[in-house]
Amino acid sequence: MSGNIFGTVFTVTSFGESHGPAMGCVVCGCPAGVPLSAELLRGELARRRPGGGGPATTRAEADEPEILSGVFEGRTLGTPIAIIVRNTSARSADYEELKDLYRPGHADWVWEAKYGFRDYRGGGRSSGRETLCRVAAGAVAKALLAKYGVSIRAWTQAAAGINAPAPGEAGFDLDEAARNPLCMPHAGTAARALAELENLRASGDSAGGAVSCSVTGLPPGLGEPVFGKLDALLAAAMLSLGAAKGVEFGAGFAAASSRGSVQNDRPVPAANSNAAPLPPGVPALGYISNNAGGVLGGISTGMPLEFTVAFKPVPSISMKQQTADRSGAVRELAVKGRHDICVCPRAVPVVEAMAALVLADLLLRNRSSRLD
Amino acid sequence: MSGNIFGTVFTVTSFGESHGPAMGCVVCGCPAGVPLSAELLRGELARRRPGGGGPATTRAEADEPEILSGVFEGRTLGTPIAIIVRNTSARSADYEELKDLYRPGHADWVWEAKYGFRDYRGGGRSSGRETLCRVAAGAVAKALLAKYGVSIRAWTQAAAGINAPAPGEAGFDLDEAARNPLCMPHAGTAARALAELENLRASGDSAGGAVSCSVTGLPPGLGEPVFGKLDALLAAAMLSLGAAKGVEFGAGFAAASSRGSVQNDRPVPAANSNAAPLPPGVPALGYISNNAGGVLGGISTGMPLEFTVAFKPVPSISMKQQTADRSGAVRELAVKGRHDICVCPRAVPVVEAMAALVLADLLLRNRSSRLD
Amino acid sequence: MSGNIFGTVFTVTSFGESHGPAMGCVVCGCPAGVPLSAELLRGELARRRPGGGGPATTRAEADEPEILSGVFEGRTLGTPIAIIVRNTSARSADYEELKDLYRPGHADWVWEAKYGFRDYRGGGRSSGRETLCRVAAGAVAKALLAKYGVSIRAWTQAAAGINAPAPGEAGFDLDEAARNPLCMPHAGTAARALAELENLRASGDSAGGAVSCSVTGLPPGLGEPVFGKLDALLAAAMLSLGAAKGVEFGAGFAAASSRGSVQNDRPVPAANSNAAPLPPGVPALGYISNNAGGVLGGISTGMPLEFTVAFKPVPSISMKQQTADRSGAVRELAVKGRHDICVCPRAVPVVEAMAALVLADLLLRNRSSRLD
Amino acid sequence: MSGNIFGTVFTVTSFGESHGPAMGCVVCGCPAGVPLSAELLRGELARRRPGGGGPATTRAEADEPEILSGVFEGRTLGTPIAIIVRNTSARSADYEELKDLYRPGHADWVWEAKYGFRDYRGGGRSSGRETLCRVAAGAVAKALLAKYGVSIRAWTQAAAGINAPAPGEAGFDLDEAARNPLCMPHAGTAARALAELENLRASGDSAGGAVSCSVTGLPPGLGEPVFGKLDALLAAAMLSLGAAKGVEFGAGFAAASSRGSVQNDRPVPAANSNAAPLPPGVPALGYISNNAGGVLGGISTGMPLEFTVAFKPVPSISMKQQTADRSGAVRELAVKGRHDICVCPRAVPVVEAMAALVLADLLLRNRSSRLD
Repeated sequence: MSGNIFGTVFTVTSFGESHGPAMGCVVCGCPAGVPLSAELLRGELARRRPGGGGPATTRAEADEPEILSGVFEGRTLGTPIAIIVRNTSARSADYEELKDLYRPGHADWVWEAKYGFRDYRGGGRSSGRETLCRVAAGAVAKALLAKYGVSIRAWTQAAAGINAPAPGEAGFDLDEAARNPLCMPHAGTAARALAELENLRASGDSAGGAVSCSVTGLPPGLGEPVFGKLDALLAAAMLSLGAAKGVEFGAGFAAASSRGSVQNDRPVPAANSNAAPLPPGVPALGYISNNAGGVLGGISTGMPLEFTVAFKPVPSISMKQQTADRSGAVRELAVKGRHDICVCPRAVPVVEAMAALVLADLLLRNRSSRLD
Repeated sequence: MSGNIFGTVFTVTSFGESHGPAMGCVVCGCPAGVPLSAELLRGELARRRPGGGGPATTRAEADEPEILSGVFEGRTLGTPIAIIVRNTSARSADYEELKDLYRPGHADWVWEAKYGFRDYRGGGRSSGRETLCRVAAGAVAKALLAKYGVSIRAWTQAAAGINAPAPGEAGFDLDEAARNPLCMPHAGTAARALAELENLRASGDSAGGAVSCSVTGLPPGLGEPVFGKLDALLAAAMLSLGAAKGVEFGAGFAAASSRGSVQNDRPVPAANSNAAPLPPGVPALGYISNNAGGVLGGISTGMPLEFTVAFKPVPSISMKQQTADRSGAVRELAVKGRHDICVCPRAVPVVEAMAALVLADLLLRNRSSRLD
Repeated sequence: MSGNIFGTVFTVTSFGESHGPAMGCVVCGCPAGVPLSAELLRGELARRRPGGGGPATTRAEADEPEILSGVFEGRTLGTPIAIIVRNTSARSADYEELKDLYRPGHADWVWEAKYGFRDYRGGGRSSGRETLCRVAAGAVAKALLAKYGVSIRAWTQAAAGINAPAPGEAGFDLDEAARNPLCMPHAGTAARALAELENLRASGDSAGGAVSCSVTGLPPGLGEPVFGKLDALLAAAMLSLGAAKGVEFGAGFAAASSRGSVQNDRPVPAANSNAAPLPPGVPALGYISNNAGGVLGGISTGMPLEFTVAFKPVPSISMKQQTADRSGAVRELAVKGRHDICVCPRAVPVVEAMAALVLADLLLRNRSSRLD
Repeated sequence: MSGNIFGTVFTVTSFGESHGPAMGCVVCGCPAGVPLSAELLRGELARRRPGGGGPATTRAEADEPEILSGVFEGRTLGTPIAIIVRNTSARSADYEELKDLYRPGHADWVWEAKYGFRDYRGGGRSSGRETLCRVAAGAVAKALLAKYGVSIRAWTQAAAGINAPAPGEAGFDLDEAARNPLCMPHAGTAARALAELENLRASGDSAGGAVSCSVTGLPPGLGEPVFGKLDALLAAAMLSLGAAKGVEFGAGFAAASSRGSVQNDRPVPAANSNAAPLPPGVPALGYISNNAGGVLGGISTGMPLEFTVAFKPVPSISMKQQTADRSGAVRELAVKGRHDICVCPRAVPVVEAMAALVLADLLLRNRSSRLD
């Protein structure tokens, strides 16, 4: 299947170059009857837009979504839901000098090596602006998941080398993540990280960071062994984000230096807290710990799903860098235009959206796992 | 698509329960004309089998592959290649007590929550033995990739909390990885890790570890933006392995606390070292560093592809653990049977196989990226 | 995969309800470098629009295509090509009475049985207007196929029970099909059929018909056995058209009452007339006859690809019919609005478009059938 | 997706060459809990084997199925079901002369044009023996469908130009189809057709025919518009059969010369005879006629699903024919070996199997069409 289509039953087709007429997506396979409106999309898209005092790009687009199909009288029809957002603030002139130049840390040259030519304006298809399509589609997925009681929350766990308290640690406050421009779950940490990001901006540099995500309300049983495992599909979803360089679930890389007696999550009798009933003869269980991050054997356990994504520093920096041009010569470049210093706060709704797309698909696929 | 099928053009259908009649796979989409034999498969499968003095399970199966279709006079026909391996050493009786018990750290209960019942013998479909199917299929992919000069090498980077030198560090020796039972690229480290694993075995415990992989000879241009990115598909492939808890590419998680000026890989003029010619007008370039791990914007750069997978400790431990049973009561369990202490050395050929499957698929898909 | 996505490598995602904001499609997997413009799309869409004196609906929409992505400086980028057409002439009021009524011969009730509710305005998603998406996508496929010398021509073979001369029969004139409003390859037959259609219109009735298609320039070797056969995929493409009730290839149903000695197409030595060279050691051959219609074992033979599609009469007729309503009661209905009397002339470009989509996909897939 | 994989949720991967070690299939996506045994498979495979006095090949293979995975204690596990049948009666020597010869009406040459070489023994992958894989997989689909009350029956409607009475016509007797070797629903017609087939055998010739199929118990709502329509998928399934040259649904090609007032199936109030309840607010309806053949807008209506497949004459005839060889020279050929005179009776269970595969897939996919 095309690299621009994601999912098996609940699918998204993404399209758009950052400086073309429009970005958009087509969501297929959403069941009929899910409440959906442009207003709901607008809210999610706004979360992805550059913040006020935050470390993000100052490009200020309206990002006004238009629903072209698939919704009738406020509900999904079961038909494809096409959503577009016009590119209104595209200052192509900023990018003229990039026409024959390959930016360090960007996909400019590999894109030409693959396709023979490229839309050089703002990265074209490889622009971070493409994540807008994912957020719009993810909003549909979230609306579906909400009907089943599934809730997805992401936040900036680390930025510019400064780590916020993790879930369970003192000071972790998810409500705070909704308040500060970095989306960090701790006000003091956020302030320190913001200051450090300003220093980097001043020196023409940029920073990496990490986004964590927690999903609650997920019933046990989601995931399609052996290749369509819950964590496998989430890993693909996360690494499909431009600047992502790694992902880990639950204890993650720390588990690699740990022992079985420490890591094993032990099942314990529990009440079935899920809306969905368990199959006949299967007892309700929980787990005494969640080192697995809510997934065992690629199947959701009913515990919170927890994972973290590592993002590299934004490659577009205003500091002068040496690079190569189309003639094969070395050139000097200071990237102009409007760029984020750290991708994390704007990645937060994108991580949520991608998780929602994976989960909506697996939820629907799971309906066929056994006879009623 | 089913969770048991992997790939888009070069696909693998995996089947088999660990104590059923046979494991196997069907490889579809392999071009006609690739040399293939049972002997070649046997060699790859042998690498996955438990080693002599190593930390792996002592179950000693022949794992004799039989090619049922798709090969004629020593070459692939372009038709599906079906390969089976009989399960000859399946001592089901070992597992009778697990019938109504859910092992900690295993998928036993979630499997029932999803499917209603399970083959409890040795994990059934969720057994690590399923990776045999991947190694067989991966051997076909490797044979195809070899025709294009692509070479894949994995090794144990860390085990039981003991880290081997990384590529570029003093003492790193990939030839050594082929000699010691842990597949570590440094003899002294391997010896210390083996000793630590023996301690864990004695105490009835187990250990995690990390496997790294490097791919050379890959032309630039592989990967299908935006969801079918090279790293996205590799991430899915790696997290589809039972005990994997994380994956990182190039600088990986370290990039999250780094700066753009440090991380950016700068393009430099270079000779085209690839068999495949670049499109007209596109200059030959290399990169002065490889923090990206050989992939930018989800497309191969022509630099070595480098990634690391974190594995959790083997959950089957002989130490007594509390767990729950089908009646919902708490029970005590000491897992019997033959189990690895650390999954890494046997994961090495599996990581290679999964990488080969992703790369074979992307190589074939790339043929359609532009007009000739 | 969703029912709204077609193809494997060259894919189309179709969207839109007939009285929603817009119809459209996203074409993924088109190679970079194919010349494409709104002008080209406009030409194909115009062929699908209701003709002047013809038997088609009198709804006169501009059907103005807008390319939202995937084209840069007049050539395809290798990225998704999104095309939309606004629904400007949608008189929803015409359809108010159909809100609680199920039209005979239409999908109104089954749509509700499946999805729970429907967009009742003009058939919504099940409207023939959806074929506009296919024609737009097909225009892209045709542009790609043209690069490889493949040409697709369809025409109305029969309408209202009146048959035009078939290819090879006296009077068959494909140029004539481009001149008369019925797209029939014989002027006199077209005149008689038009007269008969006018009679039916006067009596409030409608007619069926058949569309035939011929593809030339196709190299041998296209088709993916055993389920992705050329004729299998074309059959799916044709039966995916709303009013299609059958399809046949070459001698078709007549072959069922014939003999092997008559039907067998015998290979004969021939010059290789294809741009694409044959594999080493394979001689150039042709066939002395073409009863197979250009496909053997699901693979193109290099002879012209020939097939015919049967269309049922347009179900929307102005004659009074009994039907049932939402309350389950019997009601009388005379369908208002603008409707075709016979679907054939407007189906001609749609049949071509669907054939183009299948062939573009198979052409690209075929690139992976053997080692270079 | 590979041409050897069929379906979206309920999938089949087919493999095997007629004279290789084995034929087989892997069924993925079958829900857990469906009763399945080798005995059940054996019964279906026996229906496909050459009959006693019938017009079929005299190759008498045991066709003994072995289930390698996916079934535990008599029920499906929800994991892939791999089934193999060894090729025991493969007399390769019969085919030696075909090594460098291209048979008329066969895929020999096009196979080489595509793949560069072929397994020439008995057609290899393009042999009719491949349908064995479909029958085995179809048996699994039938077992699933039986759980939902769906029943599939096919029969030979015409052979050697002799037509049996159609459903609803005097003399049509589906029980008779199970008694005579031609599977015709009328004893006298079967006797005449058999006599005619014997004449053809004597003269070294062969015959075409038509197989019809009726499916009862199907709930309304199955089918995935717009490309995944019920009839579109069935058409692909039927044309994927080697000798099929056409397919028609309900009135089929006859509808093309009919009128809307005649063809329109009118909805009428009816009791809901389906196990599955209709969505809230949707009345139970039936149709006063079934010209549509049980499908409107690509969605099942709840009326019997009815279609007919046209098969060309068996191309392997013992009569001398001219053909071409690898050197490009003209050669004379009288096909030896064991061949059917008319494919129909053996196609009957294959048509049923392919219908079952389509319907099982659509049944499972339909579960996601609307919110509960």
